[in-house]
Amino acid sequence: MKIEAKLQELGLILPAAPKIPPGIKISFVWTRKRGNRIYLSGHSALATDGSFVGPIGKVPTEVSLEAAQEAARATALSMLASLKRELGDLDRVTAWLMVYGMVNAEPGYTQTTNAINGFSDLIIELYGPEIGQHARIAVGMATLPLNSAVVIAAEVEFAE
Amino acid sequence: MKIEAKLQELGLILPAAPKIPPGIKISFVWTRKRGNRIYLSGHSALATDGSFVGPIGKVPTEVSLEAAQEAARATALSMLASLKRELGDLDRVTAWLMVYGMVNAEPGYTQTTNAINGFSDLIIELYGPEIGQHARIAVGMATLPLNSAVVIAAEVEFAE
Amino acid sequence: MKIEAKLQELGLILPAAPKIPPGIKISFVWTRKRGNRIYLSGHSALATDGSFVGPIGKVPTEVSLEAAQEAARATALSMLASLKRELGDLDRVTAWLMVYGMVNAEPGYTQTTNAINGFSDLIIELYGPEIGQHARIAVGMATLPLNSAVVIAAEVEFAE
Repeated sequence: MKIEAKLQELGLILPAAPKIPPGIKISFVWTRKRGNRIYLSGHSALATDGSFVGPIGKVPTEVSLEAAQEAARATALSMLASLKRELGDLDRVTAWLMVYGMVNAEPGYTQTTNAINGFSDLIIELYGPEIGQHARIAVGMATLPLNSAVVIAAEVEFAE
Repeated sequence: MKIEAKLQELGLILPAAPKIPPGIKISFVWTRKRGNRIYLSGHSALATDGSFVGPIGKVPTEVSLEAAQEAARATALSMLASLKRELGDLDRVTAWLMVYGMVNAEPGYTQTTNAINGFSDLIIELYGPEIGQHARIAVGMATLPLNSAVVIAAEVEFAE
Repeated sequence: MKIEAKLQELGLILPAAPKIPPGIKISFVWTRKRGNRIYLSGHSALATDGSFVGPIGKVPTEVSLEAAQEAARATALSMLASLKRELGDLDRVTAWLMVYGMVNAEPGYTQTTNAINGFSDLIIELYGPEIGQHARIAVGMATLPLNSAVVIAAEVEFAE
């Protein structure tokens, strides 16, 4: 349980399963496991109890770059929580492969890369460069579910 | 031919292959099969003869949420038609893996999740939860090909 | 070295590794290889020395369709350069699978398909239809890293 020990060292707590806000129906699963691959749906930052508390709105006018980076880092925790529910043990992840980083950004905003680094830096800190390194996009969207400032999806490899 | 029987029960007809509008060149394939995976290009709703008839424009100002949901449901039929041309038999799909749901949305619009449910609900109704369940993004784009209101891409697993 | 010979015939030169502009931190890798798959991060057009020189801004108001097509074609060269650094020999690519074509587009712009064709046409010219054909999205984003007009990511298969 190496990854969980590191989370504890860093004082980081995995949130509970996402609580879906009223009026939203979830017709998908948060993780789809097949062969040695897990596909992770678009995740957002969550409070410890799994409720969605934002940040919402456009970066950088309604949400600052710093808040977006923090949201990206919190989104890594939401995703790790989903992986733990799917795999039981976060140490079973053998490779982060591809990360789809999406920022609710103003047209022409140039800092989506630095915003999504909040996610990538934590994954690499936890898993180390060999397992944690990943290909990535970090792009600006017209809008995201619930008007979330940051949403991130991914594909990872795991050991059966 | 279980899936086709279900389509018939539901009164649903798979459209013909996409007719490309004048002035657009298609430098890609609708399905790319390799190993036990099929990658599906961005699909839109199609008329029965394969022609593109929209809906076009921004959700929810130019296209209502209900029309976007219906477009997402019709997009599932376009994708199933592509899969049938590739595989011969829709029952060969063994798992829906990842779905990239893209909505031509106004900035700040919060209902992209519910729009793409039109796609996901039909796939799960046809294939059942074990095969049909999938990870997903459902996000808002600045624009989509032909100004289509909804475009969806996917990755599926099939049995050889 | 068939692909490199073809590049030479066409007078095309692969750019050096991307030079990261000041103020941007790269927390990801350009290529992630695992099993027989390579995931390629979002790439942009590059000058021969690897520096980012645009084009930047919205298509078609700030960057013309023709300039976006040319940027997409140049992005193929950036990606091939990354693949060469990863694989040593571009002939080891056995199949292009999925291409994520992203255009920094004005809302309602209908020509993202034709813009990304600049990428796809070159890949198919170099690799031929059997290896080069790919599934694809070609969609309009609110913004892209560095305000680049075109960013493209991909997944390819290679022989070990």
